[in-house]
Amino acid sequence: MKRSVKIIGIGSYLPKRIVKAEEIDKMFSQSIGWSEKKSGVKQRYYVDGETASFMGAEAALQAVQDAGISLNDIDCIISGSGTMEQAIPCTASLIQEQLGLHHSGIPSFDVNSTCLSFVSALDMISYAIEYGRYKNVLLVSSEISSVGLNWDQPESSILFGDGAVAIVLSKSHDHSGIISSHMETHSLGAHLSEIRGGGTKIHPKFYDEQTKDDFLFDMDGKALFKLSFKLLPSFIETLFSSTNLSIKDIHMVIPHQASASAMKIIRKKLGVDESRFMNIIENYGNMIAASIPMALYEAIKQGRVNRGDTILLLGTSAGLSIGGIVLEY
Amino acid sequence: MKRSVKIIGIGSYLPKRIVKAEEIDKMFSQSIGWSEKKSGVKQRYYVDGETASFMGAEAALQAVQDAGISLNDIDCIISGSGTMEQAIPCTASLIQEQLGLHHSGIPSFDVNSTCLSFVSALDMISYAIEYGRYKNVLLVSSEISSVGLNWDQPESSILFGDGAVAIVLSKSHDHSGIISSHMETHSLGAHLSEIRGGGTKIHPKFYDEQTKDDFLFDMDGKALFKLSFKLLPSFIETLFSSTNLSIKDIHMVIPHQASASAMKIIRKKLGVDESRFMNIIENYGNMIAASIPMALYEAIKQGRVNRGDTILLLGTSAGLSIGGIVLEY
Repeated sequence: MKRSVKIIGIGSYLPKRIVKAEEIDKMFSQSIGWSEKKSGVKQRYYVDGETASFMGAEAALQAVQDAGISLNDIDCIISGSGTMEQAIPCTASLIQEQLGLHHSGIPSFDVNSTCLSFVSALDMISYAIEYGRYKNVLLVSSEISSVGLNWDQPESSILFGDGAVAIVLSKSHDHSGIISSHMETHSLGAHLSEIRGGGTKIHPKFYDEQTKDDFLFDMDGKALFKLSFKLLPSFIETLFSSTNLSIKDIHMVIPHQASASAMKIIRKKLGVDESRFMNIIENYGNMIAASIPMALYEAIKQGRVNRGDTILLLGTSAGLSIGGIVLEY
Repeated sequence: MKRSVKIIGIGSYLPKRIVKAEEIDKMFSQSIGWSEKKSGVKQRYYVDGETASFMGAEAALQAVQDAGISLNDIDCIISGSGTMEQAIPCTASLIQEQLGLHHSGIPSFDVNSTCLSFVSALDMISYAIEYGRYKNVLLVSSEISSVGLNWDQPESSILFGDGAVAIVLSKSHDHSGIISSHMETHSLGAHLSEIRGGGTKIHPKFYDEQTKDDFLFDMDGKALFKLSFKLLPSFIETLFSSTNLSIKDIHMVIPHQASASAMKIIRKKLGVDESRFMNIIENYGNMIAASIPMALYEAIKQGRVNRGDTILLLGTSAGLSIGGIVLEY
């Protein structure tokens, strides 16, 4: 049964600083073209003083305006991000603060499944909206990857970018809705992409020359892709099993922008051509949980996704998790 | 309308190391009785090598056994904790791994609203269970506070303890269910209790003599309590407004174990006597998000909460948030 929720507004914020592939090439003392060839990323954005809550609030203001409502109409704020601004409190509270809603009382909390945080949060909160608990949920993915990259690992560090996307999710009164959603976590791959430190296991107070790499992103890209690729067919089958649809009925696939090469192979495996597969990695890099909503934002603004279209949000994340939502926009 | 969910099993794990008030007194070169008098905490537990995912898995195994089901019956794992084990991946994935469910595919993600993470997660996932998305959700709060305490701040550092609690939450086929739930976030108080570092704003790589306190818990207890206390009456009114109940109908209040003095004042403000107010702080301290489920665990095991009883889960958290759930156990 379709869940009656509708994305009534979307907004984004991109950091001031644009980092071109050439800058990355120089950093690695490589010839021009090296990083773009390896990653497919022509440019990405890195924060230049912006915080996650600032970016999130900017994206939120745009989403609220796009929805044609006011901030006072928002009755729940969720940060669906793979990174936090502070260890305490949750980022959603800090976004509420940045929005000047100090006295609002709007419930604010975080949902985290790394790169799938946006999808997991959208999936979960849709039931509460369907049920009437909330009317207009502000869901924000605001990510700063640049601070946690390990420049000794070009494979991962040349991929990522920063930025924020927000949507307003409301009760649908027309055909818009979630047709199907599914998530799988296979902890077999829990350590294929991780930041071991920063939590209670290796607390920041143990930061030193010996441990410093534990606080930076560490990825075994090949193993990660191999496992994801193996799990994908049965995942897609399950996702569509409760519907009358197949991948052929999807107007646009909105994938996580993991890496250009992974996306190409996934696209071919799904059997969709480029016209039905949003690929924005060359302009933004991998923006963690903000990648999928950023690709959706671009698809909407470019007119490649229109009301009534059936779209598929699809991604993998550290965990290892796969998540997908089939929805009528 | 009551949400048909039922806590069918509960389990806990306490770290091996018991830390008595006397040990704390000595650490501060104070006379015996000093810390207990200030905090109301006679003892608490600190991890001695245990990780959050290990503790969470131990509590989960107990909860699953208590529920009379097997691990294979679990179809969703949520970590509702204010602390993370690692920055990436989410703690729920690591708990899945610890449970040996590597290949299970069970969707696993985190919900975070600091001390209210358990309550927020229970509240949100209840709609998905009601709707039939999941049958048996494993909700785990596993907290290690001890690693992040600032011993230059006795006011907060003498309060906290570590430990884990897990529940199995399932569709209810009898009277058990959530009668009402409500959450408010007032970011006016976002910085009254915080750990400024550890996220993207002050990354662990900036840890040094100057910044070290930014990575430890910092609390203005008086201001925090003042704001919470001011917000409580209207919060309680809203929580009960959709019900035919009042605080008089609650068999047992299961409060967040913030501090002994705060709990005493809150209890009096609510107008309930000690027999209807679970106070376990003297044996466990403040266990962050694990406090409320730990108090529930004790209430059930001591026979102070029985099937059919109407109970109130109630707490405040960094953010500042207030959250509550009225449920028939």
